Amino acid sequence: MTQASPVSLERALVEIDRACGGDAVVRDPDILESVAGDESETPRRRPEALVRAASTRDVAAVLKAASKHGVPVTPRGAGTGRVGGAVPVHGGIVLSTESMRSIVEVHDEELVAVVEPGVATGALHAAVEDRQLFYPPDPNSLATCTMGGNLACNAGGPRAFKYGVTGDFVLSLEVVTAEGSVLAVGKPTVKGVTGYDLASLIVGSEGTLGVITRAKMRLLPKPESVRTLLVFVADDASVGRGITGLLRRGIVPRCVELVDSIALDLIRRDAGLAIPAGAKGMLLVELDGPELLVDREVERTGNAFGDEGALEILTADRGSERERLWSARRELSRTLRTRARFKLSEDVVVPRTRIFDLLRTCRELSERHGVVMPTYGHAGDGNLHVNFLWDHERQRPDVELAIHGLFEATIALGGTLSGEHGIGVLKAPFLPMEQSPELIALQRKMKSLFDPRGILNPGKVFEAGTRPHGNC
Amino acid sequence: MTQASPVSLERALVEIDRACGGDAVVRDPDILESVAGDESETPRRRPEALVRAASTRDVAAVLKAASKHGVPVTPRGAGTGRVGGAVPVHGGIVLSTESMRSIVEVHDEELVAVVEPGVATGALHAAVEDRQLFYPPDPNSLATCTMGGNLACNAGGPRAFKYGVTGDFVLSLEVVTAEGSVLAVGKPTVKGVTGYDLASLIVGSEGTLGVITRAKMRLLPKPESVRTLLVFVADDASVGRGITGLLRRGIVPRCVELVDSIALDLIRRDAGLAIPAGAKGMLLVELDGPELLVDREVERTGNAFGDEGALEILTADRGSERERLWSARRELSRTLRTRARFKLSEDVVVPRTRIFDLLRTCRELSERHGVVMPTYGHAGDGNLHVNFLWDHERQRPDVELAIHGLFEATIALGGTLSGEHGIGVLKAPFLPMEQSPELIALQRKMKSLFDPRGILNPGKVFEAGTRPHGNC
Repeated sequence: MTQASPVSLERALVEIDRACGGDAVVRDPDILESVAGDESETPRRRPEALVRAASTRDVAAVLKAASKHGVPVTPRGAGTGRVGGAVPVHGGIVLSTESMRSIVEVHDEELVAVVEPGVATGALHAAVEDRQLFYPPDPNSLATCTMGGNLACNAGGPRAFKYGVTGDFVLSLEVVTAEGSVLAVGKPTVKGVTGYDLASLIVGSEGTLGVITRAKMRLLPKPESVRTLLVFVADDASVGRGITGLLRRGIVPRCVELVDSIALDLIRRDAGLAIPAGAKGMLLVELDGPELLVDREVERTGNAFGDEGALEILTADRGSERERLWSARRELSRTLRTRARFKLSEDVVVPRTRIFDLLRTCRELSERHGVVMPTYGHAGDGNLHVNFLWDHERQRPDVELAIHGLFEATIALGGTLSGEHGIGVLKAPFLPMEQSPELIALQRKMKSLFDPRGILNPGKVFEAGTRPHGNC
Repeated sequence: MTQASPVSLERALVEIDRACGGDAVVRDPDILESVAGDESETPRRRPEALVRAASTRDVAAVLKAASKHGVPVTPRGAGTGRVGGAVPVHGGIVLSTESMRSIVEVHDEELVAVVEPGVATGALHAAVEDRQLFYPPDPNSLATCTMGGNLACNAGGPRAFKYGVTGDFVLSLEVVTAEGSVLAVGKPTVKGVTGYDLASLIVGSEGTLGVITRAKMRLLPKPESVRTLLVFVADDASVGRGITGLLRRGIVPRCVELVDSIALDLIRRDAGLAIPAGAKGMLLVELDGPELLVDREVERTGNAFGDEGALEILTADRGSERERLWSARRELSRTLRTRARFKLSEDVVVPRTRIFDLLRTCRELSERHGVVMPTYGHAGDGNLHVNFLWDHERQRPDVELAIHGLFEATIALGGTLSGEHGIGVLKAPFLPMEQSPELIALQRKMKSLFDPRGILNPGKVFEAGTRPHGNC
């Protein structure tokens, strides 16, 4: 798919305006500029038009007209993505579902919620927790990111270690295909094996197979009690061993977050925490469940890391104390951004027992290519966000070499290129490092089956090419 | 796909024999007869040949030759299916993976197991539990059914209520396509969002998209303690209310199995249990987790059902006592079979809060059509096995009407046609009751994309037609 001709675009927009009415179609350059990028260094690209869909009918009208006239459509949630998935790289129309923000239903007894795609993840959390229910997925941007984006990217977050990712909570979806048909996919109930699992196929397809307009999500009872521990370790090796020690004791924390020694040194003065002098890593471990159990697990978690020579272990049980421990972790990305002129963040996963090897590789790459590489992330899952900090434009080729080295090491350690950010624009050139030509060809054929004219989020996931150098 | 010509078949078998060598190709009529059916009333069909694959290479050779010559291939695990999925309805080749029965690896620290498709589910349970690990899915046939079949059908079982079904434990799969290519799909680690989720698409596709030759499965730490309760209730309505009461208390049992009043009356004399006279239903509730917690939950579960007027509650904590409580449930299908000349079992799911409505519908259908309809199953999930018992051939049309009525009611209650058995041959005619023509057409296109010549398990899932009347 290349850009649409101006005539095709105008014809499509006339039809869309007629179908959606009101102020759905936006051409104001300032507003278009506000949907030109996401939260990654993908180069910004202003679309020719923004359509704010208010209903499934609107979404269907946009896609029908766009398919008819061959106009690229880039679906957009809150634009908090990290790989350029919502950037309209071929121009055309950005289709925003942010106005579809109704929590249609929360059913206490069935433990399900039905949401529109524009519902903020945090808003869903608040709505269900009020009713003593629980929706676990918690991407870092949860205050602003939307369920539509979470579903399209199969978002994770710290609590994925115990509870799984967004897709693990999907029962069924309403999806609009590239040609504007409305499909109900998935199962109405927790169990169901009728036909192919198309819901799982749509989840994580990054807006390339269809636009999600409604989702029925599974909920859990809200855990009675939550306790947070902060563990300072003396070396990288004790991270993986400590986690294994927990699992051996039958303890599955809801989160095990790591901040490595490089990141720890960079945030030391701003963290608002007394970080012990010899600390080479910080782990944030969160346990939840019945109070009776959590109290015991806090003690046993302390023992597990104590056995591995932890330097210091802090615990918090009140909400305000927990918030203080979490704030340093949540602000990490922003804090690191202030430490250099340029920052890039990758999102790799390795088997949990290979975290030590990955960290060692990061140290080697950092030294070889002269780039500062603080690392943090979801250690329980082996899902680490490796950051690259540098100050001079001329270092860019070295950064690219370091990134390439990171991906090579990740694959060699039996890992994957993305744990939760997706492939989008930025990782598309690296896909062949992980997947065979045959597997990629099969996925491209599936894409063509769902979107014969290639209008839906073109330029993403399977588009090989050079990695764009944007604004870091 | 219709039957292969004898010439095509012979040419394919010559190539397969050359590639697989040894005794892989079997033509002995007695052995072929043994793979002509499954555990359902689907009419038996003897294939022209059985190929016993010993390796992924063998599977690839069979599919390559079959695709080349247009010969139907029906993959087969242990043949314990309940909808005819493994019955070679168009003849040709039955491809058995039963000889591929190696547990390739159990990794304690990563909590993963790698298995070949012929591994019996129970053998995997034993292997991992020996190492204090846990693989939850537990279809009723677990002693004999194989992981290949479990994956192809996305098998469930009682423990799905807390832990989920087979697909929830899949990390990655090795799959051989209809044309004989070997693909690695899924993610190497617990988290991973690189490309489309093809593993979830293959799981539950009932052998129509590819043949699974290896699977990497996620494991859990083995629960410290298990306790089983048997609850006798005075009416259908208290079943759903009791389960809701548990969830409100934050208790998620690993199983909540129901035996309804009709089934209870039929097994009363053989159950080996003192069933109270006024009992209108029996629930088997199983709790697991740390001992400290389970003890408390047993008490609170008793309270929840006590509040709903339970007649009697028995608890078991020793293995032998638990086994005694379970044995009546496990033998239910066999016991019911002795109660009438013909028996058929369906596998519907309704939202948990609609169980009462479904049971009421079953009573009405039973009365209207003169068929005995005992019901049991996984009440926690709303996944009920509704049975049909009758004694005279001439009642068959009435049974069909009752089944149709059951499916209509299931859909009207917001449910699905199959919770864990799949669609196969027997439910294929009913698929359009649940799925739109457009959704079915899309799935057929995907089938064609994966299997252009239509050789892989033809006649299943999407083949409309009349329900075959077989040996019940």
